[in-house]
Order: sequence, then C-alpha cells, then structure tokens
Amino acid sequence: MSLPDYSGFKEIKVQLDSGVLVVTIDRATKRNTFIDALGADLKNVFEFADKDERVRVVILTAEDTAPAYCSGADISGGWSGLFAKDDDEEGELAHRDGGGQVSMVIYNCRKITIAAVNGHAAGVGVTALQLPFDLRFVWAGAKQSLPFIRRGIAPEAGSTYLLPRLIGHSRANSLLLTGGTYLPNSPLLENLYHEILPTREEVFPKALALAKELAVHASPKSVRYTKGLLQHGGESIEESHLLDSRAIRILAASPDAAEGAKSFFERRPPQFESKPSKDSWYPWWRSVDVKYRKTKL
Amino acid sequence: MSLPDYSGFKEIKVQLDSGVLVVTIDRATKRNTFIDALGADLKNVFEFADKDERVRVVILTAEDTAPAYCSGADISGGWSGLFAKDDDEEGELAHRDGGGQVSMVIYNCRKITIAAVNGHAAGVGVTALQLPFDLRFVWAGAKQSLPFIRRGIAPEAGSTYLLPRLIGHSRANSLLLTGGTYLPNSPLLENLYHEILPTREEVFPKALALAKELAVHASPKSVRYTKGLLQHGGESIEESHLLDSRAIRILAASPDAAEGAKSFFERRPPQFESKPSKDSWYPWWRSVDVKYRKTKL
Amino acid sequence: MSLPDYSGFKEIKVQLDSGVLVVTIDRATKRNTFIDALGADLKNVFEFADKDERVRVVILTAEDTAPAYCSGADISGGWSGLFAKDDDEEGELAHRDGGGQVSMVIYNCRKITIAAVNGHAAGVGVTALQLPFDLRFVWAGAKQSLPFIRRGIAPEAGSTYLLPRLIGHSRANSLLLTGGTYLPNSPLLENLYHEILPTREEVFPKALALAKELAVHASPKSVRYTKGLLQHGGESIEESHLLDSRAIRILAASPDAAEGAKSFFERRPPQFESKPSKDSWYPWWRSVDVKYRKTKL
Repeated sequence: MSLPDYSGFKEIKVQLDSGVLVVTIDRATKRNTFIDALGADLKNVFEFADKDERVRVVILTAEDTAPAYCSGADISGGWSGLFAKDDDEEGELAHRDGGGQVSMVIYNCRKITIAAVNGHAAGVGVTALQLPFDLRFVWAGAKQSLPFIRRGIAPEAGSTYLLPRLIGHSRANSLLLTGGTYLPNSPLLENLYHEILPTREEVFPKALALAKELAVHASPKSVRYTKGLLQHGGESIEESHLLDSRAIRILAASPDAAEGAKSFFERRPPQFESKPSKDSWYPWWRSVDVKYRKTKL
Repeated sequence: MSLPDYSGFKEIKVQLDSGVLVVTIDRATKRNTFIDALGADLKNVFEFADKDERVRVVILTAEDTAPAYCSGADISGGWSGLFAKDDDEEGELAHRDGGGQVSMVIYNCRKITIAAVNGHAAGVGVTALQLPFDLRFVWAGAKQSLPFIRRGIAPEAGSTYLLPRLIGHSRANSLLLTGGTYLPNSPLLENLYHEILPTREEVFPKALALAKELAVHASPKSVRYTKGLLQHGGESIEESHLLDSRAIRILAASPDAAEGAKSFFERRPPQFESKPSKDSWYPWWRSVDVKYRKTKL
Repeated sequence: MSLPDYSGFKEIKVQLDSGVLVVTIDRATKRNTFIDALGADLKNVFEFADKDERVRVVILTAEDTAPAYCSGADISGGWSGLFAKDDDEEGELAHRDGGGQVSMVIYNCRKITIAAVNGHAAGVGVTALQLPFDLRFVWAGAKQSLPFIRRGIAPEAGSTYLLPRLIGHSRANSLLLTGGTYLPNSPLLENLYHEILPTREEVFPKALALAKELAVHASPKSVRYTKGLLQHGGESIEESHLLDSRAIRILAASPDAAEGAKSFFERRPPQFESKPSKDSWYPWWRSVDVKYRKTKL
C-alpha cells in the first residue's frame, strides 16, 4: 500500500511521530464547532490510520488555547440546515448522521485511539469525539454537556449505544435525560475518563506519553485481537471461551508472543511486528453495511 | 382523550403542578409496605401519566416523616400469602409478579421519571420503586437492602435485568448475593443515584426543582426518543447508527428542534409541544405481551 | 452422591469448615504461578463444591506470606510451551484455553464464590482467578496487571466477556488496552472489588467472616436462582419479568421461603435446606458444550 498523505486536510492538523498520529482540531476561531468538512477530515484520517502500518496509536486533541475541545454542531442555521438536500428526496430513511459516521470509523479503527480532551465539549464534541475512543484523558475544568433533549433533537453518533456500555445505564440516563453540564470529576462522569488532569496544559502531554509508550510496548496484533474481543465478543462465557481460545492460540504461535516473552525476561522494550499478518480468522464478525441504497434513479 | 382523574387513589396521594406529577406513597402508618392495592394504584397512575399530555415529569416519593420510603412487601403472613389463589389453578406458569408489573409500567412510561428516596427501602422498595426510574435522588442516611437470598426467595420486579444494566454486574452481585444493608454512599451503591443528599428533607425539593426545570426545558418528543434509544437501541454501533440517524432526522424536522435552536440563541426558555405527534416509526421495537392466557375454561 | 475427597490435590490446600470450603493456592515457592496442574486442581475442586451439599460458599485465596496471590502463567518457556502437542494435530480450532476452563467452572458453580486476593496478581491471576467469582476481597497494596497486549497475546479466560460486564467497557478498555499495573483503589479498578482492605492479613478473615455468615443466612436455593437470573436473565424487562415471576413463584412455595419469613420474624438465624430439590424448571437456559470433537481417528 502506498503511504497516505496527511497534509491535505482543511479542518485538522496531523502529525506522525514515533508511531503516534496526532490529530488536532484546527477550528479554534470557530470554537472548534463540528461541520461536515471536519467530519470528512476525521473520517479520512482515521481510515488512513487504520491501514497505515506506521501508525500504532492515534490521538485526537485540540489546541489548549482554543475556546473549546469541540463545542458541538454549528446550529446557527437551525437543525434543519444541517441536513443535505439529497436526504430529502428519499425521506428520513436515507439520512446517515454525520457524527455517527465519524464515531464508527474511530470505533472500528484497529489501532489504539485516545481522546485528549483539553477543553469544553458539547453534543457531538462528547459523542463522536470522545465516546468511540479506547481511552479518554480530560482536563478537570472541561465542561461536558449532552443537551440533546433541551434542543428538541435526539442523541446521535451512536451515543445511546456507547455511553451505557462505557459507564452503565444509571449514569447514561443522568447525562442524557437531564441534558445538564457536568465537570469530569462529577460522579456521573468520572469513570468515563482514563485520567482527569488539573490543568488543560497537562492533558495532551500525558496522553502523548502513554501513546508513545504503547506504540513501543503494545503488540499491534494483540491490540487488534483485544479490541475485536471487547467489541465483538461472545454472548456467554462459553462463547467467549471459544473465541478467546482461538485468539490466544493464533497469537501464542505468532512472532509477537515469542518477542513478548523474550523481551520481558530480557527486561528490554519489545520489537513487535507492524505489518499485519494475513489471518484466516480475523475479523471473525460480520461487517455491517450501513450505506443507504437509493430507490430512485 | 379525556383527562385522567388523579383523585381516586387509596394508597397514594397525587398532585399535578406545572407539568410535574408528584406521587406520594400514603401508607406511613404501615411503614409504606408494598401491598397489592399500592401496586394497583402505582400501575394506574403511571399509565395515566404516560398518556396525559399535561404531565412531563413524574416523581415518586414518600412523606419524609414516614418510617420508610418503602419497607418492602408485607410478609407478616409469610410469602405464600402473597400469591392469589387463581395462580394456583394454573400452576407456577400463571404467576405474574406484582412488583414486576409496577416496574414495567414505570420503565415503559414515556415521561421522565424520578424516584425521590427520602427514607429507608427494602426489597420491592428498592427494586420496583427505584430501579425502573430514569433518575434517583436519595437521602444519605436511607438504608437500602435487597435481602432476597436471606428470606429464601428470588430477586423480583425485573431487578436482575435492571440492576446490572444500571451499575454493572460487580455491584449487582455484591448487593444481591450478600443481601446486606448498605447506605447510598457505599461504593457498592453510589452510582445508582443521580444525587445523594445529606438530609431527608432535601431529597424531594431537589428532585422537584430538577423536575420543574425539565418540564420546561426538555422536549417531550426528545425524551420519548432518547428513552427509546436507551432502552431499545441497536446491538452494535452500526445498528445504533441506523436507529439514531432516523431518530435525529425525524426530530430535526420537527417544530421542537426549531424551537430548541431558536430559544437557545435567544437565551430564553423553550416552548416545546406537548401534544405527541403521530410518528409512523415510533415505537420501532416490538411490544412484548406478558399476559398469561389461561388454559382452562 | 458419595462425598468428594478434598485431600488428593497437589497445587492447592482445601479445608471445609461450617459450610465454607477454603481453597488455598499452594505454590508459594513458585510465586503461585498458574500451571496445568493448578488448573486441573481448581477445576476439580469447584466441580466438587458445586455438587457437595455441605458446601455453601467457596473461598479461593493464597497464603498471605506468598510473593503473590497468583503471578500469572509460567512463561519461562515462552508462550508456545504452554500449548499441549495434541492441539497441534488438529490446528487452532482444537485449542481450549486452560484459564478459561477454570473460569467457566467457577462462574457456573451454584454456590457463592469469593476470591480473597491477599497478594499481587497478573494475567490469569486476575482473569480466571478473580473475574468469575461472585465477590472479590482485596488488599489495597495488591498490584493488579493485565499485560496481554504487552506480551503479544490475547486476553483469555473469558476476561473480555466478564470484565466489561462487571465494571463497564470504559474501565475494561483502560485495563486491557494499556496493559498497565494498577492498585485496587485506582478509579479504574475499585468497583471490581466488594471490599478493599489496608493490610494483606485482613483480606482472608474478612472474606471468611462474610462466607460463614452467608453459609447460614443465604438460602442455597435462592442463591442458585439469583445467580441463574443474573447470568441467564431476560433480554428485556418483559422477558426478565416472565423469568423472575416464575422463579419467585417456585421459591415462595418452597420450605426456604417459609423459613426465611419465620426466622426473620422470630429474629433468629434461618435453617435453610441444603439438599437441592428437583426443580422441573431450573436450569432454564441451554447448556453450551465447548468440548472439541476431533476430526481424525
């Protein structure tokens, strides 16, 4: 595969360093609002990262001087302004939520994904730009808000799937059915985050330090299988046993397992393979095609 | 629809004020024990609330001078005394748990539901009268107990479904398999509650203040869809995307979304529609009929 | 049934006292590493406990002077050394993970199971030897580590099923996708534990005290049904209602329910039946056979 070009984006800045792809939302003058062009950039960059062997960890962040990490959708034109005309021809069934498109690409990315939330976030800035990530770092002062019921719309971007899975229905109810604004240390939010940091400035460096460590110490193949098992695991302990038995058997016979044990005993950083080997079994789950097929010519 | 009459109840007091229906358990002299008549009143009042356009939020509470919020079933006659004779003719298959009947009506109510737990609670006082609600406020001194295994019976009222979903299996196990008594600030319980208050007297006013705010600021249609997505969401992020794309498309085209955006920019309270519009799509899930059909004439 | 003999084990010590079966890992000189022989002993002892009417609660623990509760698999021979030759003849499909075999037996045990984690734990020492238990007590100083991605293998022993169910996907991601080492009081771990104790020496006595209390105060039949409902409950509140209605009807008519109510009013310890009655309905779920059937003679 030819290497992707990370320079052509409009709404984000992208940098690849030591296996870590850093994606920075670049709309500070617009309070980092979510617009279609930002969604398109994010979809593309996470699709690139998914396939680029050089990338082992992806971080999404904002400038820590920006007014917000992401202040949600730009609804200055009202909600209906957010929907493309071509949906209308086919009716409501044709619509595919833009935040959800981004959520799915991030959630399905086979690399470790980290959101470094160094500012306030609302709406899609919480749902698509935080919930589908593997890990979330946050500034303790970053206000988080899911105000959908207060704006007359529905929670989007897969949030009613992701949020209860991440922190349970009790807190998901509290967040989505009050539509209130909460700080990360609130008992309603805290377990959403891997780490809560006292200042904005600490958020990205902390996330980057973990990312760089994992870029060396985490086997890309193990990450792929672990995410697969967490996202597409069995529906009983027995089904899970059948899946993880097969996964561990495949991995234990791989060079990464040998290197994992060897480097551990030699007390040195491992050198894991980056090139995805062709597995006959992975992915073991069915892909779901969510594309709308037009009925009209 | 003719307006329901909230005056004919025996075991509860009911008051409708500014869109908030306040239901108070009125059995203080009996420690607010759960009896069939209380169950019937609760089923009726939540069914009324579900359909009454004037009601936007329902609160269940007790008098804060009562010996308990609800001290569970009245088992002075033993457990077998709790089962109606007509079950016996058809055997165990015919039985429908009374607490569960209440749980289902509360859980399926399309309005925001809040339990204001201003006293101790045990058994069905925790299961049916707390778990199916969207939000729970509680007094820090209110002892909570799920003693089923210590009384030789099974946890009821959908609690083995609701409790793990709300706070995870680790804590559900701890609560149900020790049968112990815990205070709301216990790590085993705390995330069950939206807010824990130091005194009994603060519980109801706090719940009422949020209820009144949500009665104005939460779009009834948004609430209906959000609860639908949380309770009957997709089983993968892709399924969730298909559901919430359709939901947000329908809502974004509704008057509530226009008013939600407009009132936000005008910095004034929104005026949302109360009348449920006829949606061709909602509810999108299958209703389950749990009624027993007798085999004998 | 003839009583099982608890004296023939090699890697564990077993003691039955007042309804509590105490299983102590007896490999302190080997840092309590997990080897096939330990797995076999654990499978056997939990299978015995499941069927032995005298056993009401099982505790797994280690000597509190041991270097670890369980320091994981012994990988001094590399990962591939852990796989028996006979897997190889049939390929990866034939493999059944040893940790998972133990997890399933513990998870499916119909008695209350408690892990008393009085030392450090890593890998299978967390997954198989903690996650399938009903309750976990732990020493605050016991380091917990799930380093699979750092060793080039996959998380095993049903951990990708059990961990998210117990504490949610947010923390399961943090633990499994960083592969880091955490103390029990970390927000990433704390809700995994029923109780966290300041010293190693307090862990087992605390677990034993609860075990002895539950051996008297918890109806074995209630425990069986409660665990069944938690593990194999309905997939909606309606399905759950149908299951728990039937369960409570069966139990309410049982001698244990009568004794549960009677002893409660007489303020004395209950005397529950130990002999499992033949229930026509329990277990109501399908058993899953995970055994591999060889294709070759």
